[in-house]
Amino acid sequence: MKMAELSRRTGVPVPTIKYYLREGLLPPGVRTSRNQADYDESHVRRLSVIRSLVEVAKLPLATIKEVLAQVDSPDQQLHDAFGVAQRSVTAEWSSIDETHRDAAAAMLQKVISERGWNVHTTSPAYRTAVSVLATYLALGSDDLTATLPRYAEAAELIGAADIDALVGRSGDLERQIEAVVIGTLVGDQLIAALRRLAQEDLSRRTFGGAPPAD
Amino acid sequence: MKMAELSRRTGVPVPTIKYYLREGLLPPGVRTSRNQADYDESHVRRLSVIRSLVEVAKLPLATIKEVLAQVDSPDQQLHDAFGVAQRSVTAEWSSIDETHRDAAAAMLQKVISERGWNVHTTSPAYRTAVSVLATYLALGSDDLTATLPRYAEAAELIGAADIDALVGRSGDLERQIEAVVIGTLVGDQLIAALRRLAQEDLSRRTFGGAPPAD
Repeated sequence: MKMAELSRRTGVPVPTIKYYLREGLLPPGVRTSRNQADYDESHVRRLSVIRSLVEVAKLPLATIKEVLAQVDSPDQQLHDAFGVAQRSVTAEWSSIDETHRDAAAAMLQKVISERGWNVHTTSPAYRTAVSVLATYLALGSDDLTATLPRYAEAAELIGAADIDALVGRSGDLERQIEAVVIGTLVGDQLIAALRRLAQEDLSRRTFGGAPPAD
Repeated sequence: MKMAELSRRTGVPVPTIKYYLREGLLPPGVRTSRNQADYDESHVRRLSVIRSLVEVAKLPLATIKEVLAQVDSPDQQLHDAFGVAQRSVTAEWSSIDETHRDAAAAMLQKVISERGWNVHTTSPAYRTAVSVLATYLALGSDDLTATLPRYAEAAELIGAADIDALVGRSGDLERQIEAVVIGTLVGDQLIAALRRLAQEDLSRRTFGGAPPAD
């Protein structure tokens, strides 16, 4: 199909498609003349993936480009897929001080050993968790000791559901890796939304308030 | 203190502080001369809060402004705090089609009634959850039926930890509301990071792989 049809099919405007092509997020079509190229279903799908990462996961284009390049890399193994998704979390608070960072790392280490997790302390996820905990500490939050182990327990339930979904999934390897990456990145938004729904229900039970009007 | 000291104390550059003042994210200091104003500890704290929302929660400034305006509003009640945090999630996939949206809403409704949650279907969190589920469906993910109830169970654990932290927290109301909002917004990043650590450990157990090198 021509670019105009690709745009119509996906709802992505032509200038945006051209931008994704220029940035290397979307592979080029097959050139049919000096000014035209032919696109296929793989382009339709890739555009849907890009839009879901932009609009739903709300990731910056630079991160999306990196993640997609890794999805496309030919020597990918299935168990690498979660590693690709890992690299999408990076929360660094530049102004955090050493004392808070050390205290945060100790807290995280304690929870990790309580749960028996075997993880790299050099991974983006580990460093992000330390940064976030240090942020809480810097802002004077003192109820982390009670909250963190419960978050970790919940994270393990989520991670187990993710792994089971991967194990049960059939199809070609590239599609599977894509599914893991999207499931993790877009899934963060789903978990954030479900957390707020649970908060809403529990807050109403605990503090009272009118039942939903609808 | 003068603006230069406020900058030194918080690590936030003077032009950035001026920008936050202009945008109304930071309340003005007490004017001491035509070109100078005096800032106090409340400004130091507010700047830390803003930086944590920018760098750790990675929220756009427009959302932060909205959230802080609600934190500051004088008629706030404690049980409104979660409502403020709710408004920070908004994932809307503009190109999602009606069929996927309807199927997603039915899935979500089923899980909500299984868990006995009493929630508004007009809330940003509800609409976000529907959008994310519709995105999965549009991308052809078929393992949601198994995954969604487990995510919801985990979200309830997280929400319960959040409510308990609020119940056990003492201090003035504004500080409590601030703590809930930050805890929810910044906490999303912590949960995303913990989820990836759990995935890493479970993936290694399930698919094998070398133990951490460090």
